[in-house]
Amino acid sequence: QKDSAAGQKPSKWFDKISIRGYMQVRYNRLLETNPQLKCDQCDRSIGEDGGLFVRRMRVIIFGQVSERVYFYVQPDFASSVGTTQHIGQIRDMYIDLGLDKKNEYRLRLGQSKIPFGFENMQSSQNRMPLDRADALNSALSNERDLAALFYWAPRKIRDRFSELVSEGYKGSGDYGVVGFGVFNGQTANRPEQNDQLHVVGRVAYPFAVGNQIIEPALQAYTGRYVVTADQLSAGVKVRPGGEYTDERVAATFVLYPRPFGIHAEYNVGRGPEFNPVTDSIETRRLEGGYVTLHYMLKAGKQFFFPFVRGQYYSGGKKFETDARSYTVRDLEIGLEWQPMKNFEFVAEYMISDRRFEDFRKQHNRQRGNLLRLQAQLNF
Amino acid sequence: QKDSAAGQKPSKWFDKISIRGYMQVRYNRLLETNPQLKCDQCDRSIGEDGGLFVRRMRVIIFGQVSERVYFYVQPDFASSVGTTQHIGQIRDMYIDLGLDKKNEYRLRLGQSKIPFGFENMQSSQNRMPLDRADALNSALSNERDLAALFYWAPRKIRDRFSELVSEGYKGSGDYGVVGFGVFNGQTANRPEQNDQLHVVGRVAYPFAVGNQIIEPALQAYTGRYVVTADQLSAGVKVRPGGEYTDERVAATFVLYPRPFGIHAEYNVGRGPEFNPVTDSIETRRLEGGYVTLHYMLKAGKQFFFPFVRGQYYSGGKKFETDARSYTVRDLEIGLEWQPMKNFEFVAEYMISDRRFEDFRKQHNRQRGNLLRLQAQLNF
Amino acid sequence: QKDSAAGQKPSKWFDKISIRGYMQVRYNRLLETNPQLKCDQCDRSIGEDGGLFVRRMRVIIFGQVSERVYFYVQPDFASSVGTTQHIGQIRDMYIDLGLDKKNEYRLRLGQSKIPFGFENMQSSQNRMPLDRADALNSALSNERDLAALFYWAPRKIRDRFSELVSEGYKGSGDYGVVGFGVFNGQTANRPEQNDQLHVVGRVAYPFAVGNQIIEPALQAYTGRYVVTADQLSAGVKVRPGGEYTDERVAATFVLYPRPFGIHAEYNVGRGPEFNPVTDSIETRRLEGGYVTLHYMLKAGKQFFFPFVRGQYYSGGKKFETDARSYTVRDLEIGLEWQPMKNFEFVAEYMISDRRFEDFRKQHNRQRGNLLRLQAQLNF
Repeated sequence: QKDSAAGQKPSKWFDKISIRGYMQVRYNRLLETNPQLKCDQCDRSIGEDGGLFVRRMRVIIFGQVSERVYFYVQPDFASSVGTTQHIGQIRDMYIDLGLDKKNEYRLRLGQSKIPFGFENMQSSQNRMPLDRADALNSALSNERDLAALFYWAPRKIRDRFSELVSEGYKGSGDYGVVGFGVFNGQTANRPEQNDQLHVVGRVAYPFAVGNQIIEPALQAYTGRYVVTADQLSAGVKVRPGGEYTDERVAATFVLYPRPFGIHAEYNVGRGPEFNPVTDSIETRRLEGGYVTLHYMLKAGKQFFFPFVRGQYYSGGKKFETDARSYTVRDLEIGLEWQPMKNFEFVAEYMISDRRFEDFRKQHNRQRGNLLRLQAQLNF
Repeated sequence: QKDSAAGQKPSKWFDKISIRGYMQVRYNRLLETNPQLKCDQCDRSIGEDGGLFVRRMRVIIFGQVSERVYFYVQPDFASSVGTTQHIGQIRDMYIDLGLDKKNEYRLRLGQSKIPFGFENMQSSQNRMPLDRADALNSALSNERDLAALFYWAPRKIRDRFSELVSEGYKGSGDYGVVGFGVFNGQTANRPEQNDQLHVVGRVAYPFAVGNQIIEPALQAYTGRYVVTADQLSAGVKVRPGGEYTDERVAATFVLYPRPFGIHAEYNVGRGPEFNPVTDSIETRRLEGGYVTLHYMLKAGKQFFFPFVRGQYYSGGKKFETDARSYTVRDLEIGLEWQPMKNFEFVAEYMISDRRFEDFRKQHNRQRGNLLRLQAQLNF
Repeated sequence: QKDSAAGQKPSKWFDKISIRGYMQVRYNRLLETNPQLKCDQCDRSIGEDGGLFVRRMRVIIFGQVSERVYFYVQPDFASSVGTTQHIGQIRDMYIDLGLDKKNEYRLRLGQSKIPFGFENMQSSQNRMPLDRADALNSALSNERDLAALFYWAPRKIRDRFSELVSEGYKGSGDYGVVGFGVFNGQTANRPEQNDQLHVVGRVAYPFAVGNQIIEPALQAYTGRYVVTADQLSAGVKVRPGGEYTDERVAATFVLYPRPFGIHAEYNVGRGPEFNPVTDSIETRRLEGGYVTLHYMLKAGKQFFFPFVRGQYYSGGKKFETDARSYTVRDLEIGLEWQPMKNFEFVAEYMISDRRFEDFRKQHNRQRGNLLRLQAQLNF
């Protein structure tokens, strides 16, 4: 595109635009004690009739196309439309506009992750437990929405955020020291349903403390969510217009694994939730969180990450049928093994106790254990 | 692929195949005076319940893979299937076969733009007003169809068509001095519904007149369009088989902006249109056009394009519900600002008066004004 | 990614990841004698209301990303969801893990072709007849499923499999000398419906016999297929749970075209099939096969492949409406012409006699002839 004066070679498209991606193949049916134990948001192949499953098939096209313009487009080819699987659908598509020459101040436009929760920000490519914990992930289907967001971080901290991913420390990537903005509020790939935007803000800082790095964060959002007709069972009662308060505040503590690591998060808030007593969707209180303990073990070029995560959630999932009501108590014990850069393998044993109730299934608490396996390609 | 004898390096895949793209993020709700004013074909986020919106997310894979074979594949990742957004769906996918060594005579096979109208041919990446004018754009949903088309242009004129885009003059790209062929007629991404193909022809020529370039054109198409069951409201009357005459003729005048530019087009024809008097879809006369005046202003590496467009359309939109009936009178005043090569920003103020009526909404004339904003990434 | 010590340039993303693809544009309506003659699985544009049609639009992203890790992702952009055409949907997405340094033993995880039948394994990019024969292709919609497969072939034979494609001999590609594994059984892009996996095994060997290469093969699979609610006409009777035995065994003989070639396959088995006598879907016997005779003719850089194929099938198609019942007797005579590397053209005359019956169309035998045309781009 750019021919420079001094005999330099003009840059080619493949110097400015890069492609990478990853894929996760899973099997969840070994040592399963209760086939009625399911989790839609986690992995639709858990429990009865689940087989081999591709959970994510991501192709990422991205690049710093000029000094101040960066873009990131990520379709997922493991998405479904009705019963048709493996359709290409966007996860991310955004522009980053640098407001200063060092891109310390950035404006992000398009569909992207909403800065609410460390585990939500962290890529599934890097997470150890197979799925995000319900407590904070129930805030946003697919973690994303159409948004206009402002991020700020000093160059030095931007580099640190970057290294915490590239050097294998399971970081979140760079969502700024300060991030705030507006988003539609119906979550990823769903059309806006009202005339108000949600508002979100987050502060996070990765402190170096001796040989360790810790990253505490605070974040909150507020808005009005509309429960849409296609999410409702026939017969369930709903507020006129389907509109509900939707707001949360969360605290995060992260200790990066040098070699022992901790992720801990908790959120409280209010949102739509099915109430079996009244057969209606009501604005109700929600709360929950998780703690993940892990350890980073190098052996030559191989990495091992043993981990354990406990999680709790009590509240609704606004984007599920009838804003389904949940009480979740899960314990996961697992190991991520990276025998080489391009391939990872995770095995985890999950001890689960989940109540998930909507208009049709009003008494539904399921307890069970299962072994979960995942092979991951990184390209 | 090709190893040459004289020690040259064999060409790599990325030398023959290139990737580029663009994205448009919009917000249309500022200074809005009438939330009932909407336009499905233009931008579904205009009016009530519209929020932040990605209008286009295009990834283009293309290349001159051998002397006579060129291809172009353009999925759009801002397409919808029902209420599921941001699905990858094709806009263009075609082969160009050169019939002579200089590729002055070309056969184009696949889904591509149908040569009817300058503004239809011009990429949305280059257009100043945010949406195409209804008068000619109502001929073809997404401007495209499955087609076998023949194009001819002398090498010199092919180069001129190309420069009128690459040098920022907002050209249409190369659709030949002469173009003609056949197409299915149900418009882009919809299956053929009858046993007849549509026929289209176009003549355009970019004359250099002193320092100015003007490009007059004439074009026409004819065929039989089938209004399908999924477009019909329960109760609306329709011809047996749903088949209607569908034909138009259009005239174009373009003055490229050196520095002052004009785009003017008008078409007349016949096609299916809902008639509220008889509750039925009938073959009716249609007509309309637009004039865009604009100015090209350079300031260092930055470009500014102030523009004004007035449009009028009276007729049906064959591919909408009940072949919805329209009368449109719009005036748009705006500015496109290109602060750098990879980013553009458009603000336009739209003064709109639109009647759009189908079986369910039989009296629906909406007048209103709004400010429209767009950020565009080019990569 | 990999910086080597001795001053070598680090490898770039485009050295490890490649993109290629192909597209097929068709027209099937010339010299057609019976517009009621159709074939859903072959080509939906055969017969009444068929027009210009893009049968396949494939973009393949692939690469040997490290010594033992290979990946292959192939979306097709000519897929449909309901009446919405040209949606991007996966055909292949898999990881190959080399179990030894020479990758002679490989584990393949993800969605990929199930090793059952030479013509099923052979890419449509290389096949001469426009569609696969019904007898073996009725085993698997889109030839694929989610699977964990093991392949073994000695290095020398892997190279031979590869050359049989790259040198134009219309090979199948490398699906091992021995291949076996498990798969979900509902075929490509459809969710698993029961708690059992299908099992498949195949043995094939390309023997060099003088100047000729022959490749005999044996293959079989067994499992339980579930006919799903969305495949059923209202009124048709079905087993409780919709589950049916689904198993086949097949024999293959291939003589590669030096210059005369033969493909011959036959399979027998059992599977769900609509029975018009009882208005129900029953487990019934199925059988059928085909013989393709062809000739490879070089003229300078051009290739010509005249071919003739006769096929027979009697049985159900498990993944079609009501597990539709078929009796097929087709004869095709055609020519594939490759005037250059990036473009191919096929014309074939098809003499067809097809009975295809479901609950709604209980007496439906159609006979007819037609001329079929295809232009193919390879990039």
